[in-house]
Amino acid sequence: MSSSPAAIEPGQRLAALRSALSAASLDGVVIPRFDAYQGEVVAPHDERLAYMTGFTGSAGIALVTADRAVVFVDGRYQVQVRREVDLSAFEIEHFYDAPIEQWLERHAVAGQRFGVNTMLVPGRLFDLLEAGLGRAGAELVGLEADLVDTIWPDQPEPPLGAIKPFPLAFAGEDSATKRNRIAAALGRIGADLLVETQPDNIAWLLNIRGGDIARTPVAHSTLLLDRTGTAEWFVDARKLPNDRTAIVSDGLQISPAEGLLDAIAQRGQGNVIAVDPAFAPVAVRQAVERAGGSVVSQFSPVTLAKAVKNPVEINGFRRAHVEDGVAWVEFIAWLMAEGPRRLAAGDPVTEMEAQAELLKFREQRQDFVEESFSPIAAAGSNAAMCHYSSKPDTNAPITAELPFLLDTGGQYFGGTTDATRTFMLGTPTAEVRRTYTAVLQGFIALMTAQFPTTATGHYLDALARRPLWDLGLDFDHGTGHGVGHFLSVHEHPHRFGKVVNPFTFEPGVIMTIEPGYYSEGGFGLRVENQVEVVAGAPGFLRFDTLTLVPIELSMVDAEQLNRSDIAFLDAYHARVRAALAGRLSPCAATYLEAATAPLHQQLAA
Amino acid sequence: MSSSPAAIEPGQRLAALRSALSAASLDGVVIPRFDAYQGEVVAPHDERLAYMTGFTGSAGIALVTADRAVVFVDGRYQVQVRREVDLSAFEIEHFYDAPIEQWLERHAVAGQRFGVNTMLVPGRLFDLLEAGLGRAGAELVGLEADLVDTIWPDQPEPPLGAIKPFPLAFAGEDSATKRNRIAAALGRIGADLLVETQPDNIAWLLNIRGGDIARTPVAHSTLLLDRTGTAEWFVDARKLPNDRTAIVSDGLQISPAEGLLDAIAQRGQGNVIAVDPAFAPVAVRQAVERAGGSVVSQFSPVTLAKAVKNPVEINGFRRAHVEDGVAWVEFIAWLMAEGPRRLAAGDPVTEMEAQAELLKFREQRQDFVEESFSPIAAAGSNAAMCHYSSKPDTNAPITAELPFLLDTGGQYFGGTTDATRTFMLGTPTAEVRRTYTAVLQGFIALMTAQFPTTATGHYLDALARRPLWDLGLDFDHGTGHGVGHFLSVHEHPHRFGKVVNPFTFEPGVIMTIEPGYYSEGGFGLRVENQVEVVAGAPGFLRFDTLTLVPIELSMVDAEQLNRSDIAFLDAYHARVRAALAGRLSPCAATYLEAATAPLHQQLAA
Repeated sequence: MSSSPAAIEPGQRLAALRSALSAASLDGVVIPRFDAYQGEVVAPHDERLAYMTGFTGSAGIALVTADRAVVFVDGRYQVQVRREVDLSAFEIEHFYDAPIEQWLERHAVAGQRFGVNTMLVPGRLFDLLEAGLGRAGAELVGLEADLVDTIWPDQPEPPLGAIKPFPLAFAGEDSATKRNRIAAALGRIGADLLVETQPDNIAWLLNIRGGDIARTPVAHSTLLLDRTGTAEWFVDARKLPNDRTAIVSDGLQISPAEGLLDAIAQRGQGNVIAVDPAFAPVAVRQAVERAGGSVVSQFSPVTLAKAVKNPVEINGFRRAHVEDGVAWVEFIAWLMAEGPRRLAAGDPVTEMEAQAELLKFREQRQDFVEESFSPIAAAGSNAAMCHYSSKPDTNAPITAELPFLLDTGGQYFGGTTDATRTFMLGTPTAEVRRTYTAVLQGFIALMTAQFPTTATGHYLDALARRPLWDLGLDFDHGTGHGVGHFLSVHEHPHRFGKVVNPFTFEPGVIMTIEPGYYSEGGFGLRVENQVEVVAGAPGFLRFDTLTLVPIELSMVDAEQLNRSDIAFLDAYHARVRAALAGRLSPCAATYLEAATAPLHQQLAA
Repeated sequence: MSSSPAAIEPGQRLAALRSALSAASLDGVVIPRFDAYQGEVVAPHDERLAYMTGFTGSAGIALVTADRAVVFVDGRYQVQVRREVDLSAFEIEHFYDAPIEQWLERHAVAGQRFGVNTMLVPGRLFDLLEAGLGRAGAELVGLEADLVDTIWPDQPEPPLGAIKPFPLAFAGEDSATKRNRIAAALGRIGADLLVETQPDNIAWLLNIRGGDIARTPVAHSTLLLDRTGTAEWFVDARKLPNDRTAIVSDGLQISPAEGLLDAIAQRGQGNVIAVDPAFAPVAVRQAVERAGGSVVSQFSPVTLAKAVKNPVEINGFRRAHVEDGVAWVEFIAWLMAEGPRRLAAGDPVTEMEAQAELLKFREQRQDFVEESFSPIAAAGSNAAMCHYSSKPDTNAPITAELPFLLDTGGQYFGGTTDATRTFMLGTPTAEVRRTYTAVLQGFIALMTAQFPTTATGHYLDALARRPLWDLGLDFDHGTGHGVGHFLSVHEHPHRFGKVVNPFTFEPGVIMTIEPGYYSEGGFGLRVENQVEVVAGAPGFLRFDTLTLVPIELSMVDAEQLNRSDIAFLDAYHARVRAALAGRLSPCAATYLEAATAPLHQQLAA
């Protein structure tokens, strides 16, 4: 093997990129955080934004010109970005309040040329950038080669995680049947071909799982599906097992990973091709247009089909949640015993120790594979950052004074979990009690809601916030998201939140419900369960819990609760106790017994 | 005067219209319900849909071809349309589920020509019709003369209601200041001219009131406003008073009513002209385009400015609600005394008698002008139709067995009122108690909500429905609407409902809150207050009641209520009592005392 090429120091990268810009006769370049698959998690190979700017958050975009450099991040990352990025070199802007396309419109000069890698931006964003530049008389140039890659001598190789078949016993529906369902959907929208670039959609469609990125078992690849249900899968053969019989079925042809755009060039002419404007690289749309095909801009029908879990998938979720519930209860019993003891000994449990402890308990559970996302273990004021991630230099102790928030989940072979609990080792302040109780009431309001089948995520969102609003408070994140089946913990298209989301629910959709409250610089609270959407009264749906973890009651102000809140808590705890009975260590069983007693007993204790 | 021309019998009108179609070389004609002003209430001159079809509801559209005739109405009117329309001549379709543009796409034949009066359809609808026909290869022809008018020999003349100045003491802001505010808004959207065609917008902008339609004091006219705040008002001079000094101020020029399109022809070239796509006749847009101007499709800035009431307007509302509250309480005291007595005597009070009685009490109140809409007085199963209007042949008695719903409001010089109360003379069934209590809880939930300034009407709607959803029930209308200031009782743009509404609230916006429940063929319930949006905690808004009418508690199941529900009811009733004290007849005062006692006292009584 050749020796690694000389690395470029962080402080030199901007200058190197500006040289590359100049050599390419460009006035600026856009650096997205996403890879070609537009997922939340990217491989080290694709950490271009972090390489150029130092910013490691899960969403953002940068812009570099000859004399300016700007990083755009959303509200979650305004603090983090200022810690990670060299503010003498980069300006910071707000992703939504002052978006990049407006910056381009204001600052670009007529005749300027800005480049962007057409594999890294979806059509919708490309159009926004192009329109912003166009209003300034400037031009957006689609680049086939990435400019950052040219100044990244030690860039990691693209991942080559092993692809494995995902057995029918866990998937519940064979790939050919799924492909035929999607093919029928293509017929309904008048498309001849679907270009699918989302790794979780391909994993679901082909009943495979991969290993290209952390904590989400997907493979980077792309796929073309036609109206007969026949698919051409563009995947690096090195990732495939030697024995492909369990993967390759009738109507699935394997082609080289880089073949997608050529295949479109060959098959596009005269055809109507469905392209997801929010997820497929704009290069796909451009290839269709070059080939003489016509594009139908369409949310991928695979995304919609995958969101509705079949009974086998639901069973997998339920098994995973029993395993995960056991791990949680073992962990909480440990924390509630060890936390005060270690505090008294002057050696408090820390955030990183706590998350490691829960991981240890999870690793003992059946079918556990890995965590489903990087845990948020946040003590004291760290919890006020709702997307905090503990690192050695921030790793705070869990004290008696302030709550400890733990948001974590597991990838189980057959189900993905995600839950948040907030704990208190000491006596809560009146403010914590008041706000925790309001968060819990909002959680219960949505958990227990029965709602019309026509309802959407933005329409139900207020139910979970109303108790906080009564206090003049709110939280600045969505109230819940879809969850994949041994796939992405954040799965499209469903979402509870303030932003309009047009997708209605149906039985089998899996969601989280997770209101919170964050007192800046003070403390943070969140309660989160995963739920299954189930049928309710005729014309109505409701939620049934998947998560089986006791809810901390020591911070509850019982005076604030309605009878229906108390009825929910008692029924939920009885269910958790019944589901986990007989599976716990003696210490955890004792803890569970106490933690799931009726509210009035716990408060009397 | 010449004698009236011979009328055409209803049964002959379709044949006459088809002859006119044929003479005009058209294959079909679209007959909107709206007039050129797109308001809910139209003058007899503009009752073209009723003239052609017999349907008298407030929304609908018809289509007549050589061999078919279709009436499209929404869910509210599915029963009524079938009673009013000759079903051997007309088919009925659902306005939203099977809209006219889809019908045209499916049934039109390539080469066919359909006509529509371009003064009666706004741009958005014209585009939908044209696109539907276009997909069928057919053509939409804009007509300058109305085809129905040509076969309506006894068509009433356009209205000539007197226009009066609306004094500054009631309006709170002079017209020139308002016009300057709107002119500034035009600057912000880059428009040189605004075409305003909405009568309530013009009434607000010019501080005038008119008399062209029933129950809404507006005048039919149109207006052009430029970026200096100068306006040209196209109005029939016969409506104006001899002394115009209180109306015409600097910067307002009066021109003949029919002059709008000619003025656009003269002033349009090279200008950017703001045209409301949902309200301005498409003829306006076409005139701008013909003149060489460019259209900016924009919700009228007058609509947005008018929605936020100034302190003088708010005071007017509050005065009107005290007057209206007195009338309501006098009426309720009468109903509660007279209703049972007349029932026992075998001569029950009827719907029409009840609504007439409340009108009599209103007519004694200061500044009362007229009702603000045709009352919904609905006893027994009539109340299951949420937009019922009592007529001699449906006029039902108010019995002891089922609730009586009364939804009515007044135009006061200085404020417009709208409230609903549901009454029960006998003992409610368990179903009525359960559902009335749920409706009331939904009402209270929205009445007492504090919500972020970013919240919109669709986002808050679920709060008012949740208690009904718990029972597997819902209601099929919006939860509330904006209200004009001595103008339209239904005022744009704010609305609580399931449909996405992008407009946030601010202090001074006036809304109704009116959840209901309708058991088909059984009974109907609704509780409605008018509210003012006021500031809440920092970053939050809330509602303050305008309506001062006791809420019927005899149907309440107190076991269902939360403490916060009871606290609201007791505080609300104490406020009503204090506001109306000393203004009532002895009998009504005695009734008010009992009806506003704390809930536990009333239930014990």
